[in-house]
Amino acid sequence: MTYSKQDLLGLKDFYNNQLLSDTIPFWFPRSYDKEYSGFLLMRDRDGSLLDDDKAVWIQGRATWLLATLYNTVEKKPEWLEGAKLGYEFLNKYCFDTDGQMFFHVTRDGKPIRKRRYFFSETFYVIAAAAYAKASSDEEAAINARKIFGDCIAYSRGEKKLNPKFFNTRPSKGIGVPMIMINTAQQLRETIGDGRCDELIMTWINEIENYFVKDDIKCVMEEVVPDGSIIDHIDGRTLTPGHAIEGAWFILHEAKCRNNDKHLIDLGCRMLDYMWERGWDKEYGGMLYFRDVYNKPVQEYWQDMKFWWPQNETIIATLLAYTLTGNEKYAQWHKLVHDYSYKHFHDKINGEWFGYLHRDGSIAQAAKGNLFKGPFHLPRQEWYCMQLLYDFLK
Amino acid sequence: MTYSKQDLLGLKDFYNNQLLSDTIPFWFPRSYDKEYSGFLLMRDRDGSLLDDDKAVWIQGRATWLLATLYNTVEKKPEWLEGAKLGYEFLNKYCFDTDGQMFFHVTRDGKPIRKRRYFFSETFYVIAAAAYAKASSDEEAAINARKIFGDCIAYSRGEKKLNPKFFNTRPSKGIGVPMIMINTAQQLRETIGDGRCDELIMTWINEIENYFVKDDIKCVMEEVVPDGSIIDHIDGRTLTPGHAIEGAWFILHEAKCRNNDKHLIDLGCRMLDYMWERGWDKEYGGMLYFRDVYNKPVQEYWQDMKFWWPQNETIIATLLAYTLTGNEKYAQWHKLVHDYSYKHFHDKINGEWFGYLHRDGSIAQAAKGNLFKGPFHLPRQEWYCMQLLYDFLK
Repeated sequence: MTYSKQDLLGLKDFYNNQLLSDTIPFWFPRSYDKEYSGFLLMRDRDGSLLDDDKAVWIQGRATWLLATLYNTVEKKPEWLEGAKLGYEFLNKYCFDTDGQMFFHVTRDGKPIRKRRYFFSETFYVIAAAAYAKASSDEEAAINARKIFGDCIAYSRGEKKLNPKFFNTRPSKGIGVPMIMINTAQQLRETIGDGRCDELIMTWINEIENYFVKDDIKCVMEEVVPDGSIIDHIDGRTLTPGHAIEGAWFILHEAKCRNNDKHLIDLGCRMLDYMWERGWDKEYGGMLYFRDVYNKPVQEYWQDMKFWWPQNETIIATLLAYTLTGNEKYAQWHKLVHDYSYKHFHDKINGEWFGYLHRDGSIAQAAKGNLFKGPFHLPRQEWYCMQLLYDFLK
Repeated sequence: MTYSKQDLLGLKDFYNNQLLSDTIPFWFPRSYDKEYSGFLLMRDRDGSLLDDDKAVWIQGRATWLLATLYNTVEKKPEWLEGAKLGYEFLNKYCFDTDGQMFFHVTRDGKPIRKRRYFFSETFYVIAAAAYAKASSDEEAAINARKIFGDCIAYSRGEKKLNPKFFNTRPSKGIGVPMIMINTAQQLRETIGDGRCDELIMTWINEIENYFVKDDIKCVMEEVVPDGSIIDHIDGRTLTPGHAIEGAWFILHEAKCRNNDKHLIDLGCRMLDYMWERGWDKEYGGMLYFRDVYNKPVQEYWQDMKFWWPQNETIIATLLAYTLTGNEKYAQWHKLVHDYSYKHFHDKINGEWFGYLHRDGSIAQAAKGNLFKGPFHLPRQEWYCMQLLYDFLK
């Protein structure tokens, strides 16, 4: 099969409607915290509040989402108001005195936990950059660029975080170059930053040279600094949905660079390898973890279906299809799209469930917690809608 | 139903055979690492090695197991040899220069990870104490008592570990008094220690006064230091199998104290409350996590069936039955015993799978990893065999 123009128009409308009439209204404006700023996002299937704590990643991501909708979809005052609440909370309560950001805080911004990563910071950058564009707030632009500088320093090891592991078995993860590519892309597309073009290529080269293994058709999650495979349980563990997210960041870069052939080829190889390893041929859906040599994965929940790997795969397959016209990607897109909206979408209350058993039954019905909030799903619906709008022009 | 004497004799033989002809031969002697000392325990379903790393908890637990078999079942030189290998590895490679123990090391004892808990230390204590008894090694007895002293200091906050959380929402967990009760019981039963009797009662009182909630029929996993419930997702999360493990530590203490009525009543209440909350009435087996108010649990894999909660429930129900004669406990014991040996036991290769989906199908088939090794299952088979031997005398 392939997609006709009519099919693609239908998909564009579908994503548009899901985003604006189902996903966004589930979260906003009811989650705006007008008392302390920020958002109350830990919600049960029906939207009732499970916990008033705030996850810093998700406060940043929700701020980015609202500002991005304002910048790209419609100048709705409600969205700008929400982005401002989020941006204020991040600035007021989410930085420790040492400049590092927290991971988990109370409703009124008291710290619960700080982690030894800089992902809170990367989500701050995209939030502040999108908010700066939406509000024309110059200070937000300055802050976005400053914390982006911190992230670059962390990613290069110039700024150090407390290590979680001893240096006995040095390793590096694909997560760092991936998140930096996307952070830089967002910065470039909102307020612009002269550092981004070159840095993005550096991080893409890092992924291509160290993590993509053509001989075994695989994208590794973690490798020895020289790129070799760590033959221990953790080192062998693959996260197909994550690698596929990396694939579409690279395909997006190809699109930004006049459909750069080398980048299209790289992104499609990554997608091909990890579709093959992650797609569940029995039940459908993208599995969470795999072992590079098909040995047992330590994480016992490895065969569950999480929402976000499906979101990333929906974007990657549609982007690959629009860039290559290869029918295979239309087929894959239809498979993952149909599976996901059938099993994850909550037809009663809106939004998606986050966690299914391998067979597609619901394992846990909450819509928001410390790890899930308004990000992967609305980003997918927004990105695919914009992508199809451009493609069909 | 209830158990006849014949039934109990049959159970005793069953546990004896499973332990000595199925569980132990799966692990030993093939896991002895004669090159570096310690054990190679990260094994696939068929016993093949998945990883040669060593988990410090499990090195300690395996040492305890082999020494305990030697002390209580048979003076087999092979078991003493294994216990010596384990004890040597713990001493040589598992302590950091600051005196704190590691969590995860390489085969040759180089550190990978240290954690902000003192569970490695408690398993060292029971390993060194049991080995001291088996070998009459005076230094091992001194070491066991010394590290037990460290554990007491950690448990009282006199010795500090790097905290994982800020002090915004102070809490305490049932894990600390529980592990200390068991550690002290093991120490008392092997080499003896004058501190144990009184300390055990202090920790039992701590559990009774702060974690057992008769009004809502529940044993909390974590509470505010004053014992009140933390109404946030993490604070509401219950681990029924863990609370039931705590119940049998207390029932065991009741048995050690001439069938102390108050302790029998406390242990049985804990078992009753958490059986009701954790037992899966649809598929059988003990579920992993529950929410105290039946809200969604954050951990997505909350409805999986892990091996060890079943082991702890098998012990607790049999112990409750032998102490009270209440037929309910015989029924519960039969339910969890039958479920477990049907679904978890690997009839082809021996030992148990660790991780089932809620419906009883296998989620991950490895027998050993960073978290699973020769402990909960052989301890259950050993404990129940000894218990029935005493009971039927």
